Amino acid sequence: MADAARTAILPHFRNPALLTEDKGIGRFDPVTEADRAAETAMRAILAQYRPEDAILGEEQGTKSGTSGLTWVIDPIDGTRAFMSGTPTWGVLIALCDATGPLYGLIDQPHIGERFEGGFGRAQLTGPRGTHPLQTRATAALSDAILFSTFPEVGTPQERAGFEAVRDRVKLIRYGMDCYAYALLAAGQIDLVIEAGLAAYDICAPIAVIEAAGGIVTDWQGGPVHAGGRALAAANPDIHAAALAILKTIRHG
Amino acid sequence: MADAARTAILPHFRNPALLTEDKGIGRFDPVTEADRAAETAMRAILAQYRPEDAILGEEQGTKSGTSGLTWVIDPIDGTRAFMSGTPTWGVLIALCDATGPLYGLIDQPHIGERFEGGFGRAQLTGPRGTHPLQTRATAALSDAILFSTFPEVGTPQERAGFEAVRDRVKLIRYGMDCYAYALLAAGQIDLVIEAGLAAYDICAPIAVIEAAGGIVTDWQGGPVHAGGRALAAANPDIHAAALAILKTIRHG
Repeated sequence: MADAARTAILPHFRNPALLTEDKGIGRFDPVTEADRAAETAMRAILAQYRPEDAILGEEQGTKSGTSGLTWVIDPIDGTRAFMSGTPTWGVLIALCDATGPLYGLIDQPHIGERFEGGFGRAQLTGPRGTHPLQTRATAALSDAILFSTFPEVGTPQERAGFEAVRDRVKLIRYGMDCYAYALLAAGQIDLVIEAGLAAYDICAPIAVIEAAGGIVTDWQGGPVHAGGRALAAANPDIHAAALAILKTIRHG
Repeated sequence: MADAARTAILPHFRNPALLTEDKGIGRFDPVTEADRAAETAMRAILAQYRPEDAILGEEQGTKSGTSGLTWVIDPIDGTRAFMSGTPTWGVLIALCDATGPLYGLIDQPHIGERFEGGFGRAQLTGPRGTHPLQTRATAALSDAILFSTFPEVGTPQERAGFEAVRDRVKLIRYGMDCYAYALLAAGQIDLVIEAGLAAYDICAPIAVIEAAGGIVTDWQGGPVHAGGRALAAANPDIHAAALAILKTIRHG
């Protein structure tokens, strides 16, 4: 499925003829031909090999199943990155049961990097070979690197929570989309905090990060695979430190 | 020189044993072993092939010359990106005379992308082949994509100028370091606005962008190859639109 998505997407990346349309009201949320082509290609593979599984896709909605398993797919997470030529968008694929993600994959086709986690696997395959994924041991917020896609995180209350953590970390960086979760799984950064997520934004990152030793919850410490506010952390210590701050914020 | 820099840097990228030190006072500005090794490797090549040229390097300062030509090099532009495992840092190499940059190169070793401009060349060589660089024709700020490395641009006065442009564009993105200038040269985005730059941050981007059809000036429309506040634009129309706003700001 990820290979099919790469084939469907790459001819459109950085193509000056790229067509987009606005599917939101008031927010800039482009849909590309690549997005639709990739989801169609992935659904065709599932129709052939896994017809009894359910599908939840970003572009084409929900297909019910009978197996108890659901494929949660986002053909291009980070459409604004894609529109800007930035290689930080990704193909997200997760396999979930009723308890949450069992396996996930974050693919960056332009770089040729694939981050996978689940079923005993936690690995990066890329231009410099295949390497295990392992989160790091940073324990203190003052030593932590935090990522979020935009400085304008969520509602005013959500932003206050994000900023309370941001103001205590060593380094904050923006603009990485799903690639931030991949960097966390690869032991490069310590925290990702975001709000307003859909299930297809977060299921694959959860599986990859947890397989690499990290933790992903909502801002109250509960499960987040259905979407909402995500706190992804490299280890239990740094997760607890960030969660203690996020929990004190009144949520609107 | 760029090949030598790649060889010197890549073993350190995403290496958990990476050592850093803080060379600034109060700001997070790491220096890596990779930074020093790459500048040493590039200077060794210049010593062999271009001993009469001057050198201005980010890590090891200035070497005088007799040819009238100066190599302006930054072995790792975007050290914070490098520290975070993010593939948006780059090796910057420019050749300048007294009038400014004649040739420039932005290299991203992890992706394997090299953006070059000058001496009749404007091209990207990368994992998907070699392509000409050509900026795009966006004329209105309301259609423009703007990049800056951090939302906290410069002094309060500088930030007011940046934000006055930001509030009129279609899309603002952060976190790309020198890669933003490369994307502008490649026709993917329309504007990059930054402040507090050194000569070694901007000389290579100027050459690459101008070779691809763009314009890079300071916030008053004058030359910026000595550093300071940069406005990089895809074409004269969008440059004029952004400059008209930046010029109205009182500079501290």
